[in-house]
Amino acid sequence: MRLLNEHDVAEAAGRIEGRVRRTPILAMAAGEAAAAPVVFKLEQLQHTGSFKPRGAFNTLLSGDVPAAGVICASGGNHGIAVAYAARTLGVRCEVFLPLSSAPVKVQLLRALGAAVRQIGSVYAEAFEAMEARRAETGAMVVHGYDQPATVAGQGTLFREWLEQDPDLTTLLVAVGGGGLIGGALAALGHGLKLVAVEPRRAPTLAEALDADAPVDVAVSGLAADSLGARRLGEIGFALARHHGLTSVTVGDDEIRAAQLWLWHHARIAAEPGGAAAFAALSSRAYRPGADERVGVLICGGNTDPATLAS
Amino acid sequence: MRLLNEHDVAEAAGRIEGRVRRTPILAMAAGEAAAAPVVFKLEQLQHTGSFKPRGAFNTLLSGDVPAAGVICASGGNHGIAVAYAARTLGVRCEVFLPLSSAPVKVQLLRALGAAVRQIGSVYAEAFEAMEARRAETGAMVVHGYDQPATVAGQGTLFREWLEQDPDLTTLLVAVGGGGLIGGALAALGHGLKLVAVEPRRAPTLAEALDADAPVDVAVSGLAADSLGARRLGEIGFALARHHGLTSVTVGDDEIRAAQLWLWHHARIAAEPGGAAAFAALSSRAYRPGADERVGVLICGGNTDPATLAS
Repeated sequence: MRLLNEHDVAEAAGRIEGRVRRTPILAMAAGEAAAAPVVFKLEQLQHTGSFKPRGAFNTLLSGDVPAAGVICASGGNHGIAVAYAARTLGVRCEVFLPLSSAPVKVQLLRALGAAVRQIGSVYAEAFEAMEARRAETGAMVVHGYDQPATVAGQGTLFREWLEQDPDLTTLLVAVGGGGLIGGALAALGHGLKLVAVEPRRAPTLAEALDADAPVDVAVSGLAADSLGARRLGEIGFALARHHGLTSVTVGDDEIRAAQLWLWHHARIAAEPGGAAAFAALSSRAYRPGADERVGVLICGGNTDPATLAS
Repeated sequence: MRLLNEHDVAEAAGRIEGRVRRTPILAMAAGEAAAAPVVFKLEQLQHTGSFKPRGAFNTLLSGDVPAAGVICASGGNHGIAVAYAARTLGVRCEVFLPLSSAPVKVQLLRALGAAVRQIGSVYAEAFEAMEARRAETGAMVVHGYDQPATVAGQGTLFREWLEQDPDLTTLLVAVGGGGLIGGALAALGHGLKLVAVEPRRAPTLAEALDADAPVDVAVSGLAADSLGARRLGEIGFALARHHGLTSVTVGDDEIRAAQLWLWHHARIAAEPGGAAAFAALSSRAYRPGADERVGVLICGGNTDPATLAS
């Protein structure tokens, strides 16, 4: 398998230009969010509230979509992004997702015109049902994280971020199935230090690096609805191994504290998975050196806002 | 009275540099938030969740603060900003505010170490109590909107915004007591078209322009906690008359719809007053011409996030 690289990401950026928002960055001085300066990338302001439309648009625009349209399985954000991209481009869309998905995400899918099928308690069960359906209809599958066009699309976020702040040395990025971190590695793996952050209760990357191959892991916890893939994708794993990716895990309490800090100190509405990267910094699970300029990705904001109040 | 101008704002910018965040902008394409392209300035991400620290820091840094510290009366955001600036600079702070103030704001004031006095049902009553107290203690008054240093400090927001997007032609700005729009006029009144937006139920500017002088108005409605000054300040009025300011009013339903749109389509948490400027555009109370590039200021995000859900 050829490793994705910065040229794939550059092509994706050209393909999706004008379809996605150029989300802003917010810099905080040393001593505010952490001992070091921090540059937040506010990707929760993206269409549909997460980074996922980048990969979805790149996938839909990379091939010919059949009359049956597109089909996907998703814990939520990916499905919403595929539905959004499909509606924008005028193609049919069917989304499979677990019964555990957040109600706000299910409502949004329906509002975007997608046919919604809720099946199973975890992502993997919804994925199997989707595969069976695809065999019937011949729709184009849009995978959540393990398709080259999806990963290259997510990589456009990091290309854009470095354009916005060329002095960044280190980026903290949350990991679920590995599509986002894979995109980061493809875009910037040769130039910057990337730190993968995942919930201790959904450690797909840490376990894969230990086993030297993607393995099934038990998934639970606060951020499972967005970072709860059962197994790391092959594309993300190959990139992680090639680039010697640094892995950090954080606990649910640390994620929750980070989420509340972001709201109370900066009016940033992050979902738990969207706050995970910052949790690595605020909990000191990752301690930057004096010469690092650290970027922290807020990758999603699809949470019930009432949960931000306490 | 000498009119404030861009030189006053430039001095303020130098004085408060490093004390306030350079808040980001978010551009949306034509057809998304409005028929025209829109460039949002996300000032709700500022320290304390509103633009007010700009004026507070400039005021505290423009003169000698006595041992009794600073004192102010505020419907909320101004008081929080003064408390924040006072804590940052290590001076005492006493804040008077009406009983109607949002609980989230009162809690935040206390957390910032301010002595809180809740008196009266509207801002003007809290203001009178503050004046009596100041006569006793000799503390430095920080007015919410009608002091030159406060207005010049708010002006730094607009100077910064134009640096971020030099192609802007038109800015929509919410009005309460006139400190923010006064700062905008001082900074950019000679170059850009400024459109003042205020709630129909708190029309301090519209009534002042009609009467050709600031007059007391009845204040109520959704955004009264942040835009509910009873009378426009003299500084803001003089600048508004000099520059021939355009005034638009919006209803509470329009403000509420704008607030929900910002959350659902961009995960922007705006308080009602913070959504008022966008309401002028989304309700078509203001219709930009084809040659305008419109900026919309989100000036505050201090709302109970649960109100964003529905």
